[in-house]
Amino acid sequence: MRRACITGGAGFIGSNLADRLVADGVEVVVVDDFRTGRRAFLDQLAGNALFRLVEGDVLDEAVLKDAFGGCDWVFHLQANADVRHGLEHPLLDLEQNTVATARVLDAARRSGVKNVLFSSTGSVYGEPEVFPTPENAPFPLQTSLYGASKLAGEGLISAFSIGFSLTAVVCRFVSILGERYTHGHVIDFFRALRTDPTEITVLGDGRQEKSYLYVQDCVEAMLTAAAHHEDRGGTHVYNLGTDETIVVDDSLALICATLGCSPKVRHTGGTRGWTGDSPLIRLDTSKIRALGWSPQLSIAEAVRRTVEWLGDNEAIWQAPAGGAP
Amino acid sequence: MRRACITGGAGFIGSNLADRLVADGVEVVVVDDFRTGRRAFLDQLAGNALFRLVEGDVLDEAVLKDAFGGCDWVFHLQANADVRHGLEHPLLDLEQNTVATARVLDAARRSGVKNVLFSSTGSVYGEPEVFPTPENAPFPLQTSLYGASKLAGEGLISAFSIGFSLTAVVCRFVSILGERYTHGHVIDFFRALRTDPTEITVLGDGRQEKSYLYVQDCVEAMLTAAAHHEDRGGTHVYNLGTDETIVVDDSLALICATLGCSPKVRHTGGTRGWTGDSPLIRLDTSKIRALGWSPQLSIAEAVRRTVEWLGDNEAIWQAPAGGAP
Repeated sequence: MRRACITGGAGFIGSNLADRLVADGVEVVVVDDFRTGRRAFLDQLAGNALFRLVEGDVLDEAVLKDAFGGCDWVFHLQANADVRHGLEHPLLDLEQNTVATARVLDAARRSGVKNVLFSSTGSVYGEPEVFPTPENAPFPLQTSLYGASKLAGEGLISAFSIGFSLTAVVCRFVSILGERYTHGHVIDFFRALRTDPTEITVLGDGRQEKSYLYVQDCVEAMLTAAAHHEDRGGTHVYNLGTDETIVVDDSLALICATLGCSPKVRHTGGTRGWTGDSPLIRLDTSKIRALGWSPQLSIAEAVRRTVEWLGDNEAIWQAPAGGAP
Repeated sequence: MRRACITGGAGFIGSNLADRLVADGVEVVVVDDFRTGRRAFLDQLAGNALFRLVEGDVLDEAVLKDAFGGCDWVFHLQANADVRHGLEHPLLDLEQNTVATARVLDAARRSGVKNVLFSSTGSVYGEPEVFPTPENAPFPLQTSLYGASKLAGEGLISAFSIGFSLTAVVCRFVSILGERYTHGHVIDFFRALRTDPTEITVLGDGRQEKSYLYVQDCVEAMLTAAAHHEDRGGTHVYNLGTDETIVVDDSLALICATLGCSPKVRHTGGTRGWTGDSPLIRLDTSKIRALGWSPQLSIAEAVRRTVEWLGDNEAIWQAPAGGAP
């Protein structure tokens, strides 16, 4: 890997990946339109000769052409990552995730990029029948527009791989935690408890069982898979997660312990937090582990670090997305 | 079923379905832009009080609103069905199949349609590991942009079903043959043999093993699944095909026998007719058979009828798509 473009490179996972690649001596081109990405997440890279920012939308062909030139890898991390509110704007995931992925793939092959990594999601398993869920689980039904949009992206990258001899790596993430986390249940709980530490509302019955992965472990896993398959063709799908799970109530308890509060907890009821929420996510990660990777942090430690980062960086995550140019 | 809209209702399968529904006393609204659909396929319905044509593109919201009003079913059959040439225009399947399906689903729920049937394809199994391939086969990798675009459509209908309480029926078709067939290997061979009955070129090694289904059997299967699930919610996936297969060379031999010619056959070689072609398609149809359906025609009979129809209707299928308004 000599030069890599990261779409969504000013986001949570993308900016951590950018830091790591630059530290490894890889030239990094970040594409971001700062709709949800944050300029502050790239501050440490400003002026570094290995780093270049292309500001713009991945739906803009000229932006991608500028960014992809000379790259041997594209890490396509840009996405609408808002799983929960898909039904309020039913065509948004399609545009931001599916159509955007098609445009990225088409631009990649036109620019001669030979390797693409796509950030998919464990949500593509819908409500699986097999736990822990392996990559070749039975053909699933989609339960959310987010999952459907990522499934579509997976199909596209696989077909492009065969049609245009790209090497494709598909990573199905569980929820990611850690430094620069700006979106999800930990920040929702954190915000609510900052406003009122005496009581809190949990969507569903609090027994939804989820898996989380620390962002540096996620970055290491992506790079492990990328290094293994580079320039060797084919489509390679990996679940990325820990083998642990945690229920929402226990995650809340960890957050409260870190913040030092003891709120009264109210549950809205039902086994799902929202329509399309999956009550149990536990992925089989033996395939990525077989490449020599294993996570360094437990879920509990990842939650603790996330809460500490949120406490130390309120100026960043409370500012509007993007921030001053 | 009181009123059904058929997108792509002037096409091969759509117009056969329209005839059948009108014969059954169902009000039918056909949406077609006549890009590949043919006016001649609707001639027999003109003036029938049960029939209405809405001419326009399924990407046009106003067209769908007009067409879907008062319908209890939408049969979404409109598609770019050109599997083979996907790589020549890599974003066309996305637009015509995936984005179009999202728009149809969104318009359906806005119009209060409660039941949607989606025409998917056995191509979503890519190159399966299990034969005959059941609906819950291992999570497949896509091998064609066509398959990827239909997989995306399946994901969308399933997510819409859960999010908006639609009843969704997904039919994964093998190739369909019969009256009004205008696209695929039988017509390609037919045309070539009309031009030169002394020799013919077969893509691949001629041993690709495929399954075909007669169009009236396909219509009957769709209506069997629709009747079974109507208004009962959920997403229900069915393979539609015969339990037989036929290799391409044998299919060619049947066509030659029907036409009375004996060409010299040349093979281009390789196990696939084109990039993304599947060398073996054999679907497990026990799920749709369990509803009481079974195909009435063999593949050989379906090929013979198709060739006879092509011979009797050259004026129709040799005219430009659409034809005079």
